Parts: sequence; C-alpha cells; structure tokens
Amino acid sequence: MATKVTPISGFQEWLPADRIAEQIVLDTIREVFELHGFASINTRAMETVERLAGQGEDADKEIYGIRRLADPSGAAELGLHFDLTVPFARYVLENAGKLTFPFRRYQIQPAWRGERPQRGRYREFLQADIDIIDVGSLPDHYEAELLLVVADVFARLPIGDYRIHVNDRKICEGFYRGLGIEDVIGTLRVVDKLDKIGADGVRKLLLEAGCTDEQATQCLALAEISTADTGFVDQVRALGVTHELLDEGLAKLAAIIEVANEHAPGVVVADLRIARGLDYYTGTVYETMLEREPGYGSICSGGRYDALATDGKRTFPGVGISIGVSRLLGKLITEEGLTASRETPVAVLVAVNDEESRRDSMRVATALRSRGIPTLVAPKAAKFGKQIQFADRRGIPFVWFTGAGADEKGDQVKDLRSGDQVSADSGSWAPPEADLRPSLVLPESDAT
Amino acid sequence: MATKVTPISGFQEWLPADRIAEQIVLDTIREVFELHGFASINTRAMETVERLAGQGEDADKEIYGIRRLADPSGAAELGLHFDLTVPFARYVLENAGKLTFPFRRYQIQPAWRGERPQRGRYREFLQADIDIIDVGSLPDHYEAELLLVVADVFARLPIGDYRIHVNDRKICEGFYRGLGIEDVIGTLRVVDKLDKIGADGVRKLLLEAGCTDEQATQCLALAEISTADTGFVDQVRALGVTHELLDEGLAKLAAIIEVANEHAPGVVVADLRIARGLDYYTGTVYETMLEREPGYGSICSGGRYDALATDGKRTFPGVGISIGVSRLLGKLITEEGLTASRETPVAVLVAVNDEESRRDSMRVATALRSRGIPTLVAPKAAKFGKQIQFADRRGIPFVWFTGAGADEKGDQVKDLRSGDQVSADSGSWAPPEADLRPSLVLPESDAT
Repeated sequence: MATKVTPISGFQEWLPADRIAEQIVLDTIREVFELHGFASINTRAMETVERLAGQGEDADKEIYGIRRLADPSGAAELGLHFDLTVPFARYVLENAGKLTFPFRRYQIQPAWRGERPQRGRYREFLQADIDIIDVGSLPDHYEAELLLVVADVFARLPIGDYRIHVNDRKICEGFYRGLGIEDVIGTLRVVDKLDKIGADGVRKLLLEAGCTDEQATQCLALAEISTADTGFVDQVRALGVTHELLDEGLAKLAAIIEVANEHAPGVVVADLRIARGLDYYTGTVYETMLEREPGYGSICSGGRYDALATDGKRTFPGVGISIGVSRLLGKLITEEGLTASRETPVAVLVAVNDEESRRDSMRVATALRSRGIPTLVAPKAAKFGKQIQFADRRGIPFVWFTGAGADEKGDQVKDLRSGDQVSADSGSWAPPEADLRPSLVLPESDAT
Repeated sequence: MATKVTPISGFQEWLPADRIAEQIVLDTIREVFELHGFASINTRAMETVERLAGQGEDADKEIYGIRRLADPSGAAELGLHFDLTVPFARYVLENAGKLTFPFRRYQIQPAWRGERPQRGRYREFLQADIDIIDVGSLPDHYEAELLLVVADVFARLPIGDYRIHVNDRKICEGFYRGLGIEDVIGTLRVVDKLDKIGADGVRKLLLEAGCTDEQATQCLALAEISTADTGFVDQVRALGVTHELLDEGLAKLAAIIEVANEHAPGVVVADLRIARGLDYYTGTVYETMLEREPGYGSICSGGRYDALATDGKRTFPGVGISIGVSRLLGKLITEEGLTASRETPVAVLVAVNDEESRRDSMRVATALRSRGIPTLVAPKAAKFGKQIQFADRRGIPFVWFTGAGADEKGDQVKDLRSGDQVSADSGSWAPPEADLRPSLVLPESDAT
C-alpha cells in the first residue's frame, strides 16, 4: 500500500475521543427524533444527475459526478446527493404506494458538495433531517411542531444559547406583491444576501432589478423587523402595505411564535429577513444561529414546501428542518474543545497475571460484558504497573485483578482516579452509572 | 423537481419497518463491538484513486471515480472507497502520532463497488468492521479474540445456524513450499476458486500454472480438510509434507480452534480451503457461512495482515474482520421476511379531542417523552375511531385520550391489541418494556 498520505481538506475526520463526542451528539439527536415519532430512512448516496441538477442556487456545478474508472469518458449519469431533501423526495415518489401518510421520517447521513472548503463548510458533511410529508394538503401545526423537536434536541446538548429565526415566505411574497413587485423569488434572493452585503448592497441590487427607491426602502424595512413575541405583526402593519397573502403569513407566523413560546420559551424569534435560497420553500422558513456568534452561519435550517414532490397526479406537501451536524461540531469540537471523557468505550480493563491465565481474565470479561459493562482484557501479561498505565493512558476508569494473582486474595477492582481497590465479584459488581459510558466533556474555559 | 423516478439496481433501500429491523441489527453490532472495547471511527467516503488502486484482485476498474460536474474532463483523482480497510490504513498512517496502540477500532459505514449487481452483491453496501492494529508486532491471541466478538454479535441476532471457517495462510504457504511450489499467491488464488469451479477446474488451472500432478493432488487434498476440532492437524500431517511455516500455522490454528471451542462452542470450524483473495493477508483468514445456504457467500470475512500500513519507518500489523451487513440483511430481510414489530418508533398516540385542545394533547406527549416513551400527537381532531385507525395502521400499540374529552372521565389509555382501556396519569404511566421500542419479528414460517 502507498505509504505517502496526502491530507485532503474539507473533510471532517475525528480522533477517537472526538468521534465518541460526535456519537453522543448523534445518539441524542436520534433519540429525540424517535421520541417525537419520526421513523428512520436511509437513502443511497447516489441520485441521477438529472434529479440532482436544477434545484435552485448555482449548486449544479458543485455536484460530484460519479463514473466507474473502467468507463472514464462521457457525462456522469449519477452524482452524490448534496442534501437529504432531494433523495427523500425521490424516495417518497418511488415508495408512495407503500408508505403511510402523513409520513414522518428522520434521516442522518452525509451529503457532499464540491465547494471550496472554509470555516463551517465541508465537502462531506453530516446532516440530521426531519420531515413530515403528506398527500394533497398538510396541517399548519406541523410548522410549529418541528421547532419544538429541535428545541428538545438542543436542550439535551451543550451547544450554548441559540435562537431559531423564523419567517413565513407568504409574508415576504404578500408584502412584495402589495408593493407592486412581481419578481418575488428574485427579490427574496437579493434580500437573503443582507448578512453578506449589508443594507446598501441589497438596496443597490434591488434598484438594479427594477425596484423603485420606495419599494427598496420598504423591502429593507420589512427585513429589519425581528421580535421574540408576536409584536412583529403590528410593526409590519405600521409599514402600511396590504395583501391577502401578507395577512395569511402574519397569522401563521404569529400562531407558530405563540406555540413555540408556550412549549419552548426563549428559543424562537420572528425574523423577517430570513429567506433561504432554495426555490421550493413556500411557507415557514427556519434558520438557527448560535448567540455567541450569529455570523458563523445557520446550524439548523428548513421550511415548508407545498410541492416538494409530485408524480403528476398527486402532490406531496411537507415541512422539514435539518441540523447541520458537521457545521455544529466544527464549532463545538474543533474550535471550542468539546470532547468525550475517554477515547474508548471501555469501563474496565481486566489485568492478565500471565499468558497461561489469560482465559481466566477472558471469563471475567465475559461476565462483565454479559451485564452490559464494556470490558477489555489487557493485551500482554506485563507488570501490573504497565497494565495500569495502559488503562490510564486511555482514560479507562477501572482495572480488575483476578484472584489467581500472586497473593491469591480473590478478585479485586481498582478505581484509577481515587486509587481505591476493593474486593469484587464479576457476577455482580458494576461501575457507577456515570462511568459506564463515556460522556461529553467541555473544556475548563467553558464558553457556553 | 423531475417527476419520473427511475429505479436503480444494486442499492438496498428499506421501507420504514425494514429500516427499523436494520437499525436493531446495527445497534446490536455496535453494542457488542463497544462491549468488547472497540472505539468507533468514521472515515470520509473518498480516498485518492492512487491509494484505492492496486489492492489485489481485478477490483480497480470497479472503483467509482469522482469528479465535480464543473470539471468533467481528465482522470478522477478521488474515488469512493470499496471497503473500510483501505481507509482505515490511511487513517492510521495519517494519525499515527495521536493514536494509542494497540488501537482497537470499529467502523460501520457504506462502501461502493461499480460491479454488476447480483444476489447478495450491491453497488452500495454496509460493512461493520473491527480491527486491532499495533506498531511493529501483534500478539497472536487477537486472532482468536475477533472470532469471539463475532460469535457474541451473532448470538444476539436471529441469523440461524452459521459457521466461521478459519484457516491460516501459513499452513497453505508452508504446505505449498514443502511441496516445492514457489508461486504461493497464485496457487492460493486458484484454490480460492474451489467453490466456483470445483476440484477438476482447480486441478486444471494448477496444472496450467506448472504444478505436477502430484502437487495438484496434494493441494486439493489439503483444501478438503475441515474439522470442528483440532483433528485437522493429524490429517495434514498424514499428507506427509513438512515445512517450518506449516508447523507454525498448524500450531496457531489449533490454538485458535481451542480457544473458540471453549468460549463459543459449535461456532468455528478449521477449513483449509479458505484462502481469501486479497493479497495483504499473512496469517489467519476467516469466512462465515450460513448453514442453511453456504453457497450464498461469506457474511463475515477477514484475517491477519502483517503490514497493512507502513510509513517507511514503522510497520503496522493488524487483524480484522468485517460483517457484510447488506449481504446478511439481503438474506434475512429481503429473502426471509425478517422485519420490525412496527413501522414507527411510536409507542403511544395521543388523541386530539378538538383543535382547541391540541395543546393539552401536546402536554401529555411532552410528559411521556420526558420519561423516554416515544409519543405522537394525532395529526387531526378526527373522530376517535379514525384516530385509533391511524395508530392501528402503523402498529402503534397504545392510544391516549385526554380528560378534556366529552365525558370528562380523566385521562385514559387504550391497548389496541386487547382493547383494554384504563385510567392513566401521564406523569407515571409507562408501557410494558417489550412495547417501548419496536423489536425484530421473524415470519411465521421461520427458516432459522
């Protein structure tokens, strides 16, 4: 095998302790998704290029095409998915006759984009998505429900203060139409750049697109409105624009903010600048920012789409939200030092007295494992000091000595942190619950 | 989005109930790997084509090369990994200074091969690997240990009778050299075809490769030896070939069979025809067959390699074994009908009396979830009969009625199987342990 290793940028690979931290985060996300009644699906990594292309934004050229090395020429017919929504929509169409609607699914998988790697953006990244999809129509209450699922996830993780920023595209569309602007999607895309290019930049682009000075001023005024309660409604009304879609959007968003504030107070904010680039959103849109650095980018985004998929006869409306796991962990693990309490699942190392008695140590390990205690037998019958060092170096909290040892005093177990050593029976002893599995550990200078 | 869905062959995508069965299998594998002290790593999907190519067999042309759609011309520099061993070796080289050796890792990820799909072979397939890797040298006892880990996994899954077939390449190499055969790798590859082309076919190829009739007869005689105990040693001796590597291999394999038979009786068989195609194995090799259809192919394979990775100065020997999850589930789920007891994690559906009291139902759901009970609120305040039907159709075992209902008799919970309905408190009620999560269900005509 080639000995030269060329690191490749844009990929997030963890050392074992950080990988365990990632696993704890993923297990928590999955647990909450399941508690809220979402069923898992996994889709293949590949979709047809025809299906991947043309999803809005200039994403097409970032798609990774796939060809067997044996067939290098010609255009790629398959590509790696760049999100989990496109494959989910295809899965729903392919299996519509076998699914029970409304269908609630979660999906935790990597996606790939051939973009320039930068902070918080990777060429391979893990997403954790939930969507609720139905046939024909979809009740509005799901749009509030997804927020509560995300709030439940984040309440169980040490991510620090965050806010889910919510808007409804109907508000923007109704407002723009009330102003006499016809290119709604184009205007949304320009306003979506507010964080990147500022109000002056947005005004310039709006004027170039044909807006009047008054229209541009009103669009910017709408985008500036942000309230933690339903106060945004009066602020929008005060701008004097009227349209029935605007009324509908304001009522929907107010209802969402009310439900969210009752069930997860302090988490959600109505923020009328949130647009999301993708064309398929038609109602609520979400973005989630860490309070300590909103400019890091959204760690959880999504929205409502009235026609994500259609088979010609039936239309499948849905609402979905996606936790950007890699982006979140790039902040928590890589930048802020979140990790796990040890680099191995092992709670107990069983020492080996000599190679002849390795089988005795194996029997102890089997007894402990049968009661759910992750256990390792020492690799060599080295001096006990070396075996203890082996455990200590990995953060394994307990070392077990079998009674066959030199002093024949029966089995004993040593807590490496306190140094305490006590007699123990492999059929009944268990470590404290907190030591059974590795846990998340924040660095001392905890920013959260 | 395009409405036409073109199914693509060679990919294993599950409907929700079968996906839950897959999750239970994967959770079991992970749990056992962790109980035995393996730490998880995940590697990126892509490696350099330089690293992927030339790993033995004619696999190169099956590698999926990757190019951005924006850069369609020229040779691919990156490709999708076709197993988890090559990426693991690269990971070890890249992180050698930060890993603690001996390093025990498990890795459960998909891999990709652009081969013609057929029964048990997929273009995307899930593997669950464990490896133990060290610097310089590696104790032999790990080669028996890995068998016991696999036996522990399979003891917890309804896979039916199986046997792990074990050989040691040193036996073959020593035997061939003792016979005067010099092309050991070439001979191994020919003998590896025994299942496919039969003894006559192997003899023909061996003669074509320059073996004498006597050498070919002896190679075939060796390959026919298979014993569940250490009886194979005498059978090999009886063939009258001698070589020091042969002695070494026989002693090693006998020790493995003894340990395996003590800790996991009836699981392992010494089978001297097992060769494994890959060039990098240097000692023990494993293959695992389902007893009810050995011809289906190995569901768990691996072996010992003395130099999987080297950085020029140091060599990293290891031993590893890989469960072919997709192949196993192609048999258990697709062919034999293994599935989950329901298509959703949900244990309780909370009925909604009317849309005004949806928040009361949400509070009940929150209380149940806070105690780890997967709970769903009904999507619509339909007639109770319809809401019960909604639960029944998904296999949700319990429906909860809040006290705000017409008859004001307090909260009640109904078991849909028995029809029993009892008063309940959302702060303390819990379903029976067996109903809390979906479980694996075998079809009535259980072949296992």
